[in-house]
Amino acid sequence: MLASPELDRLYVVLVSTRNPLNIGAAARAMKNFGFSQLRVVRPYALAFREARSAVGAADLLRRASAFDRVADAVADCQLVIGTTAARNRHLLQPLRQLPEGARVIRRRLRSSRVALLFGPEKRGLSNEDLSHCHWLLRIPTCPEHGSMNLGQAVAVCLYDLVRTSGVKPQAEKIALASAGEVEAMTRHLFETLQVSGYVNPQSAASTEAKVRRMVRRLRIPASDTDTWLGIFRQILWKVRKTPAS
Amino acid sequence: MLASPELDRLYVVLVSTRNPLNIGAAARAMKNFGFSQLRVVRPYALAFREARSAVGAADLLRRASAFDRVADAVADCQLVIGTTAARNRHLLQPLRQLPEGARVIRRRLRSSRVALLFGPEKRGLSNEDLSHCHWLLRIPTCPEHGSMNLGQAVAVCLYDLVRTSGVKPQAEKIALASAGEVEAMTRHLFETLQVSGYVNPQSAASTEAKVRRMVRRLRIPASDTDTWLGIFRQILWKVRKTPAS
Repeated sequence: MLASPELDRLYVVLVSTRNPLNIGAAARAMKNFGFSQLRVVRPYALAFREARSAVGAADLLRRASAFDRVADAVADCQLVIGTTAARNRHLLQPLRQLPEGARVIRRRLRSSRVALLFGPEKRGLSNEDLSHCHWLLRIPTCPEHGSMNLGQAVAVCLYDLVRTSGVKPQAEKIALASAGEVEAMTRHLFETLQVSGYVNPQSAASTEAKVRRMVRRLRIPASDTDTWLGIFRQILWKVRKTPAS
Repeated sequence: MLASPELDRLYVVLVSTRNPLNIGAAARAMKNFGFSQLRVVRPYALAFREARSAVGAADLLRRASAFDRVADAVADCQLVIGTTAARNRHLLQPLRQLPEGARVIRRRLRSSRVALLFGPEKRGLSNEDLSHCHWLLRIPTCPEHGSMNLGQAVAVCLYDLVRTSGVKPQAEKIALASAGEVEAMTRHLFETLQVSGYVNPQSAASTEAKVRRMVRRLRIPASDTDTWLGIFRQILWKVRKTPAS
């Protein structure tokens, strides 16, 4: 069972949600299962305002913060997870099913802040949104009816996180770099690659997403973060001084 | 995991549901998790009619049957279970929490038809409704925020019925870069750092060892090795072209 500090380390992040009922439903499920930290990215302004009146979760919604970019909403988290129905999509990150994925999240919540992203109702998270994630989480639905209602998906994920499992998870041993630090490295590296002529301007966006995913696969220890950032900064400073080729 | 005949033996019974969105949401969750048998008792006529247009679950809703009394809706079932938030109520039947209760239901579905009752939005199942039940099922919510949204409660219960219990969490089996490949990256990176002025010649040996240890802490996937080597090569090529500082 998760204890209070662990519950407060989970950030539910709703990306581009359209329907105020769904924001309200997500907030209500969070209250039901003891979670408190809600963040929204690019919500439809009206949806966010209307949702703030949701029954039983008004305080949680008032404290919810809004962001323009996924990168900012997850910057202080050490683990970022995207939910996906995983249909018709070539996935570029590791995928875990819910019962197993929840165990991993529970373990990480002992020492880390974890962001759990939910995409907009019709399309789910975009590939750009997903590129900020370390891995993806799927609720085991029928292949023919994979796409869940947003409020229901949030409820199912949060329920699975708090239900008592008989498994003893092992303590996570290494603290990892936060998403904000990892993104700072990604930006330095990508700019270095642009200046170095590695990036074809035609496909810059997909190269950037590819680099972002690769950096996230590295598991960078928190204690190495400053050194890596210093290294990336120095290299970028150097390549910028080079004459154009 | 439940197989098809077992899934078809579970009857979701919605009692006196007011909101068509909730009937639709329940039907959608049933499709998500592979269930097919929906029954409604005394629904508000309008709610039931409107719900029949719910996206993705129209066939299931068309086949749903309506009853005037709980007794009739569960008459052909061998086990009848009522869901409850269990607040402020002196319960007269045994109460099971969801993860344990779902195990019992899964077992009984091998040979029996099971009815799972959900009450109306505001008040939940009445004592009369509950009196038809063999035992009661509670989703483990916070005591202060026990009452769940109806569609979310249905989704959570059905999810818990179908999720694979007893899954062995798999260790992540990613093949990592070989020591030779890691060392090649280390050499490229270190030379880049030398050319970039990051390395103090006085302490070059200890800086090199430090960089080597840091790169080894990264856990680089084997499948990313070639891309990382290409990146390091390109950056090194670029910094070498820079005028000395």
